[in-house]
Amino acid sequence: MASDHFFCSVSEKSVHEVEKSLAPSTKHGADLRFHGVVRDTEEGESISGIDYSFYPAMAEKELRSIGEAMGNDHPNHLAFVHHKIGFVENGEASILIRVQTKHSADAFEICREYLRRIKESVPIWKKPEFDS
Amino acid sequence: MASDHFFCSVSEKSVHEVEKSLAPSTKHGADLRFHGVVRDTEEGESISGIDYSFYPAMAEKELRSIGEAMGNDHPNHLAFVHHKIGFVENGEASILIRVQTKHSADAFEICREYLRRIKESVPIWKKPEFDS
Repeated sequence: MASDHFFCSVSEKSVHEVEKSLAPSTKHGADLRFHGVVRDTEEGESISGIDYSFYPAMAEKELRSIGEAMGNDHPNHLAFVHHKIGFVENGEASILIRVQTKHSADAFEICREYLRRIKESVPIWKKPEFDS
Repeated sequence: MASDHFFCSVSEKSVHEVEKSLAPSTKHGADLRFHGVVRDTEEGESISGIDYSFYPAMAEKELRSIGEAMGNDHPNHLAFVHHKIGFVENGEASILIRVQTKHSADAFEICREYLRRIKESVPIWKKPEFDS
């Protein structure tokens, strides 16, 4: 799941678990990490969490294609995206988008743009589990 | 070091150490964390790290004052700032700015603004240690 600047994974591993093994860098002064967290309500109703499902090949292919396009649009960054699949309880992150850049302003712009493109086009379905 | 929405600490604890104990939230869908990382060069010369020093009362007072102003300008967010003091080797983060909001767009805007204000006005001095 790699190009030079982009790595991604979609699996049952938690964001927390995956984040523990991220390597540091001495070349990038900014390391920005967006965690998309499951809230405890969905359209006003209490939920215990969200069950995420996907077609692995499609989701990862789309992520890689976003990574490639972002590499063209914004040279000189590193990015890593992980999406947890399966049940994610409220308070837990379902997605991590990490962006490393030399300077901080770029990191905010690029990370936000990854999030926008991922939301727009990666086929991952969510099914809220409502409290009974 | 607290108001309702803002917490900060300035100490010799590493960002990594501090980050491990951050509490999750079921009310905030976005949890954005900016790590300011020490690079391996300073003005073109190799460095092993940076030694940060400060007047604790001044730095924390200024951080709290930024937190208060940000609470007025951007209601409904949570923020936490930690700055490590002492020697921070290259590849390690010297500062963490965590912002939690209900939706993601606000998190990017608010986190970036914290960083801008902190850089501008918090009196923390840095002394690079050059490789000999």
